[in-house]
Amino acid sequence: MIVELVSVGTEILLGNITNTNAVYLSEMCARLGMSLYYQTVVGDNEQRMTETVKTALGRSDVVIFTGGLGPTDDDLTKEVVADVMGMELYEDKRTRKRIEEYMKVYEKNNPGRKITKNNWKQAMVPEGAVILDNNNGTAPGLIMEKNGKIAILLPGPPNEMKPLFEEQVYPYLHKKQPDTIYSQMIKICGIGESQVAEEISDLIEHQSNPTIAPYAKTGEVHLRITAKAKNEKEAKKMMKPVIRELKSRFGKNIFTTEESKTLEQAVVELLQEQKLTLSLAESCTGGMVSSRIVSVPGASEVFREGFVTYAEKAKRKRLLVKKSTLKKETAVSAKTAKEMAKGGCFTSGTDVCVSITGYAGPEGGTKEHPVGTVFLGCCISGDVTVRECHFTGNRSRIREQAAVSALTLLRDCVLENSKKKK
Amino acid sequence: MIVELVSVGTEILLGNITNTNAVYLSEMCARLGMSLYYQTVVGDNEQRMTETVKTALGRSDVVIFTGGLGPTDDDLTKEVVADVMGMELYEDKRTRKRIEEYMKVYEKNNPGRKITKNNWKQAMVPEGAVILDNNNGTAPGLIMEKNGKIAILLPGPPNEMKPLFEEQVYPYLHKKQPDTIYSQMIKICGIGESQVAEEISDLIEHQSNPTIAPYAKTGEVHLRITAKAKNEKEAKKMMKPVIRELKSRFGKNIFTTEESKTLEQAVVELLQEQKLTLSLAESCTGGMVSSRIVSVPGASEVFREGFVTYAEKAKRKRLLVKKSTLKKETAVSAKTAKEMAKGGCFTSGTDVCVSITGYAGPEGGTKEHPVGTVFLGCCISGDVTVRECHFTGNRSRIREQAAVSALTLLRDCVLENSKKKK
Repeated sequence: MIVELVSVGTEILLGNITNTNAVYLSEMCARLGMSLYYQTVVGDNEQRMTETVKTALGRSDVVIFTGGLGPTDDDLTKEVVADVMGMELYEDKRTRKRIEEYMKVYEKNNPGRKITKNNWKQAMVPEGAVILDNNNGTAPGLIMEKNGKIAILLPGPPNEMKPLFEEQVYPYLHKKQPDTIYSQMIKICGIGESQVAEEISDLIEHQSNPTIAPYAKTGEVHLRITAKAKNEKEAKKMMKPVIRELKSRFGKNIFTTEESKTLEQAVVELLQEQKLTLSLAESCTGGMVSSRIVSVPGASEVFREGFVTYAEKAKRKRLLVKKSTLKKETAVSAKTAKEMAKGGCFTSGTDVCVSITGYAGPEGGTKEHPVGTVFLGCCISGDVTVRECHFTGNRSRIREQAAVSALTLLRDCVLENSKKKK
Repeated sequence: MIVELVSVGTEILLGNITNTNAVYLSEMCARLGMSLYYQTVVGDNEQRMTETVKTALGRSDVVIFTGGLGPTDDDLTKEVVADVMGMELYEDKRTRKRIEEYMKVYEKNNPGRKITKNNWKQAMVPEGAVILDNNNGTAPGLIMEKNGKIAILLPGPPNEMKPLFEEQVYPYLHKKQPDTIYSQMIKICGIGESQVAEEISDLIEHQSNPTIAPYAKTGEVHLRITAKAKNEKEAKKMMKPVIRELKSRFGKNIFTTEESKTLEQAVVELLQEQKLTLSLAESCTGGMVSSRIVSVPGASEVFREGFVTYAEKAKRKRLLVKKSTLKKETAVSAKTAKEMAKGGCFTSGTDVCVSITGYAGPEGGTKEHPVGTVFLGCCISGDVTVRECHFTGNRSRIREQAAVSALTLLRDCVLENSKKKK
């Protein structure tokens, strides 16, 4: 099936907001095995919207609209799509009741704010449309089918759009697909994007079914393996040799095969399994690694504390880095990274401590260690592993790469340590 | 002038990458006073690209293309646009030479990697086109004018596209505009989006020239004031009363009027001016505030260290929070926030310390202090100010809001302190 996305909203055309809905829906359509050929953004203008809707429904089987379902006069998506498809609007009693209830709760939680009469406009739905109940807002989603074309209308706010898509639209589209689509994620760290691409080029070159699609993230590469088949069992069977092959090629660099698991989550879980406590000693990353660890709900089970030792004095006082080391080797050196990690374990009393020190730029750096040079240390059971890295890009890119590399080093060392224990 | 954006790349349609170029270019077009009616994304497919180019050039004066200028056979933007506009391609000697030089440096810095022969394709340019030298990659940008239509072709990677746009395309488009467009930024913190909207609704309601456009960021609101006039002097004159009015309405909540200055940068500069040193004591934000401070080049002048005291023991050992306080009031309380900020100043020997402790969810919280409750403290010259906040959203939204509120509290306290000193 051919699908396209139409995002409605002048605020996107003004650059006011990023169209994250398009990224999310594109990935979902790829996962469903649908072919997405176009994304369009159009403003809240009746004439231009009408043209856009006609073009989109003319060339695609399914058009997913986001935005323009709100209560104001500017919100026109439903009206324009219904008009183009030749469907009348009527007031749906159940939807009106739902809006009424939602408003009561909203007004109670937001004293002083009143939802206006305009909201009743949102209870108007096209005849024959499937109404998708929205638990996070007043505008319901809609699925409209006519003459072999499908229009799916979703509200613009991502916290309303995503649950509606996941719970109601995804299963609907999945059923519409002639074949079953099954996909499996493999997430890799510690290997660069180009190296991964090279190592799977023979698998990708003549692929048709199943397919492997690589997605590059900072310091990570995600591979999505997708198979089309008559049923799930057959799809899984088709994917099995591909997944086995990828697992054998990337081995321990695969940190998860779960769709929504992050690297920091995998690291926290690994520490939990190994019953190890963690502290962090950061300089140039300035708390980025701590912040990523804390982003994992339940991190408190393993994470004790982080030291952001930006000044040399803090490195000495908090992490017991020697004055002579800082003088002879400077704060950006393998020896400093080593002492920071060791000192972090000592001060905090944790089993593991990861340290990061480097030149993030734009100023700083030496001839020997230019901007982009970062030393990482990991102390575990008294042993310290040090890694020297060279990153490119601006200050924020260098810091991001340093943070993900620190998580990767931490993971490597904990895995290594667990092998030793056995 | 009517403008539209066309982004070329199958990787955007697969949801592989976010189309940040569209956000950037949309805001730039708004700043130039151009009317942007459509954004389109199309894949690397000749037929669909040809249709898209025809439609776009048919309905708009200027079409800005990003992506599809690379060396591979998939990269078709230049070829398709030249074909639709009826312009022949030829090899530009100067561009070929530039690519040659760029390749030499690239190969030297990336041993083992070779730029392929395909790169010479990038030296082919349409007859009569303006060639925009690209200092960050091999594909030059292009401006093509014919029959009153303008096509602007830019490479897809943002670090190549943005400098080309800023340095060469912006001035070109600026000259093309019949009127001079002049705009001024006002950035506000410490007031919610809806309150700002309400306070300027009378100014915005019947505006035509100059205009005020609000952009909501997490914890910040940016107002862009734009005037169209014959010359800069006149535009500035028109904007003056509007800016004066906004300054009087939002007063000290305006943290900068500079386009690219961030809140953390404004805070670091304020501390530099006041010759104050800073430490941070974070719990639920887990290093986010430290990380934002460290993102400012030269932060080392004021920032000494950060404590990410996630465990209660760390709060006691590092920040001298009393055991009895943690027991009686819990770790998420006004008293704990106060003791954290005071203890941070004491341990680190800094003039100022900001503390953050709260329930970020999804688990945790009490009946009195549900998830979303965050206490902020700021100690300056021994005095501590505490703020209680209630945020909504998921774990990451709550933490982000807490971080920006901590920066806002820090700024407020330093401003207050400087008044006292006078």
